Amino acid sequence: MSGAPGAGAPPPAATVGPVRVVGTGLLGASVGLALRGLGVDVVLHDPSRVTVLLARDLGAGRLPEPGDPAPALVVVAAPPDVTGDVVAAELAAHPDAVVTDVASVKGAVLDILRAAGADLTRYVGSHPMAGSERSGPTAARPDLFVGRPWVVVGTEASRPEAVLAVRSLATDLGATPVTLDARRHDEAVAVVSHVPQVVSSLVAARLRDADPAALDLAGQGLRDVTRIAAGDPGLWTAILAANAGAVLPALRAVRAELDDVVGALEQAAAGHGSHAWPDGALGTLAATIAAGNAGVARIPGKHGGARRDYDVVTVLIPDRPGELARLLTEMGAVGINLEELGLEHAPSQPVGLASISVLPGLGGTLEAELVSRGWRVAG
Amino acid sequence: MSGAPGAGAPPPAATVGPVRVVGTGLLGASVGLALRGLGVDVVLHDPSRVTVLLARDLGAGRLPEPGDPAPALVVVAAPPDVTGDVVAAELAAHPDAVVTDVASVKGAVLDILRAAGADLTRYVGSHPMAGSERSGPTAARPDLFVGRPWVVVGTEASRPEAVLAVRSLATDLGATPVTLDARRHDEAVAVVSHVPQVVSSLVAARLRDADPAALDLAGQGLRDVTRIAAGDPGLWTAILAANAGAVLPALRAVRAELDDVVGALEQAAAGHGSHAWPDGALGTLAATIAAGNAGVARIPGKHGGARRDYDVVTVLIPDRPGELARLLTEMGAVGINLEELGLEHAPSQPVGLASISVLPGLGGTLEAELVSRGWRVAG
Repeated sequence: MSGAPGAGAPPPAATVGPVRVVGTGLLGASVGLALRGLGVDVVLHDPSRVTVLLARDLGAGRLPEPGDPAPALVVVAAPPDVTGDVVAAELAAHPDAVVTDVASVKGAVLDILRAAGADLTRYVGSHPMAGSERSGPTAARPDLFVGRPWVVVGTEASRPEAVLAVRSLATDLGATPVTLDARRHDEAVAVVSHVPQVVSSLVAARLRDADPAALDLAGQGLRDVTRIAAGDPGLWTAILAANAGAVLPALRAVRAELDDVVGALEQAAAGHGSHAWPDGALGTLAATIAAGNAGVARIPGKHGGARRDYDVVTVLIPDRPGELARLLTEMGAVGINLEELGLEHAPSQPVGLASISVLPGLGGTLEAELVSRGWRVAG
Repeated sequence: MSGAPGAGAPPPAATVGPVRVVGTGLLGASVGLALRGLGVDVVLHDPSRVTVLLARDLGAGRLPEPGDPAPALVVVAAPPDVTGDVVAAELAAHPDAVVTDVASVKGAVLDILRAAGADLTRYVGSHPMAGSERSGPTAARPDLFVGRPWVVVGTEASRPEAVLAVRSLATDLGATPVTLDARRHDEAVAVVSHVPQVVSSLVAARLRDADPAALDLAGQGLRDVTRIAAGDPGLWTAILAANAGAVLPALRAVRAELDDVVGALEQAAAGHGSHAWPDGALGTLAATIAAGNAGVARIPGKHGGARRDYDVVTVLIPDRPGELARLLTEMGAVGINLEELGLEHAPSQPVGLASISVLPGLGGTLEAELVSRGWRVAG
C-alpha cells in the first residue's frame, strides 16, 4: 500500500481508470493484462460468459460490480463487423467516457456511428498493428503491443482530451502512436495488409489441386508468399467487406497489371520456340518485375530506417539441439552483430540452413571466421 | 599421389570427368567448385573472358588446353533464353558427351533441341532448386545444392546411362534427384515459383506510389509476401517468357478468382453501412480465404514431412550482440529443440522479436522457463 516506487512497483500509467474493456478475446484481454500490470482498474465485458471469465482468471481485469464508478475509458475489442454498433451503444451507455475501438478498419465504424447519431466528441478510433496467429483470451499477452505502431484515428469532432486519452493508452501499452484520419488509415491497410492477404490466398489456392511433385519443389519463396494465407476466413471476410471501398481500387490496379502480364505471356506463348518475340511483350514482363523491385525497396527496414542490403551468409546447421545457439555464440565472439536470421530445413536431410544477415561488408569476414571454426557455409 | 583415402581426401565421386561447364556464373561456378572438391577434372567456358577467369581463380576449374581429352559430361549453365541454342551446340561439338543444363524451364529447351535436330539420346535436362539473391561466380558455393531437390528431366530418347550420369551429378553435389518429365516440371514450377513471383511483384508494385504512412504500418506479412519481388527483371523475363505455356493457365486461374473477389467487394461496397449484405458476396470472400488455407496446408514442412502446427513463443530480445545466442543456449538447457525461428525488429525501438517454433505442446513449458529466467515473452 506504499506509494513509493520500488522493486515490483508498476511504472506510472498515464491512463486513468476505470477502463471498461468490451470484448475479451486476444486484443481486449491483452489490453486488460497490460493495464492491470500498470495498476489500472480494468472492468471486463464480453457477450460470452466463458470468454469473460477466462479473461478474468488470466488476470486481464475484474467483472463489473454494483456501485462501480463510471468508466473513464471504454476499449471496444469486438469483431470488425459489430464494432460500430457496439461503440455506439457504449457511447450512449457511458455519457462521460472516452470510447475507442481496435478494429482494423476505421471508415466503416465511423459511418455507422454517424448514421446512429453517436456523440463523436468522445470517440477516437484505434488500430494497434499487432496480432497473433492464435485468438481468444488464452492467447493474450501484456506485451502484445510493445514496439508496434498504434494508429490513432480522431475526427474533426474529437475533443483533444479524448485524443490524448487514446494516445496515452497506446503509449502505456508500449506501442508507438501514429496519427492518421480514417481514409488514409483505410487506404494504407488496404495496400500493406488487405491486398497482400487476398493475393497470398489466391496463390495458395493454386496449390489445392497441384501435382504432389510440385509441392515437393516448394522453396522459401513460396512459403513466404503464402504464409499469411493461413489466416482466418471469418475474420478476413469481415475485414475485407468493411474496407471494400479502399481495397477495391488497389485490387483493381493489381488486376489491370495482371491483365498486362497475361497478355504479354499470351504473345510470348504464341511466339514460343520461333525466336520471333512480339514487340513489347518482354518489356511488359520486365516492367512488372522492375515495378515490384521499386515497391519492395520502399518497405522500411530495421528500426524504421531505410532497408539495408545486408550481407547474407548461409550456414549449414546440424539438426541437433544447441547447434544454432553455438553458431550465434561464436558470431558474438567474432564481434559481428546479427541483423536478421532465417531458418530453413533442407528437405529429406538432417540439416538446416541458417541465413545470417550482417551489415554490408562484414559477410566475408564472418564467413572466413565460421569456416575456420569448422562450420559449413553454403550459397 | 596416394590412392588411399585419408584425412583431406575427397569422398569418391560417381561423376566421371572431364566435366565441361559452359557458363560460369553462380550456378556453373558452384557446380565447378563442388566437383573440384571431389577431385573431378573441370574445364570452364564462358563467353565473358572476365567471368571465366574469375571462376578459375575462385577454384571452379581450369581453362581448356590443347590436347585435352573429350568431356564426358557437359553442364550448360547459361541464361534460360540461350540455353537451348547452347545445348544444341554442345551436343554437336562433343559427340560422345552427355549434356545437361540447369535452366529453370525445361520444355522450351527441348523444343529448341527438337527443332535443331539435336541428338536427344545424350541430353538430359536438370533443374537444381537452388539459387541465391546474388549472382555471378563470386557468389558461387560448393554447397549451393546441398539438401536441395534437383529435378532430372529425361525424355523417351534419353539413354539410361545419360540419365544416370545426371542423377550422379546431383547426388555428388549433395542434392536429392527428383525425376519429372518436362511438362510436369514446367507446370510444377509455374505453380510453386513463377506465379508466386508475378503476384509478389504485383503486390510490391502497389507500394511504389503508396502513402509513406502506409509503409510505416508494414508488418511481417507484407515483408513475407513481397520478399521475392526483389528478383532480377532480366532473369525473370526470360523465365516467364520461356514458360509462358505453363504459367498462363495458372495465372488465368488467379485472375478468375481475383475477378470473383473484386465482384464480391463491389457488392459489399454498394451495401456498405446499410447492413444489407447482398447474397453470396461474403461467401465468395470467405471461400477465397478458405481455399488459401487449404492450399497452404499442402506445403510440406520440415524434412519433407507434413506441415506441423508448431507452438510459437515470441520473445523480446534486447538489440545487443549475444542476446539471441543466450536465449537459444537457455532453450537448449531446458531441453527443448528449436523447430523454426523468425526474427523481426520492432519499429523505432531497440528491441527485436524472436518467434520461436517448438513441437506442439511444448510452448507453455518453454514460455514458463523463459519467463522464470527473466525473458520478456510477447504475443
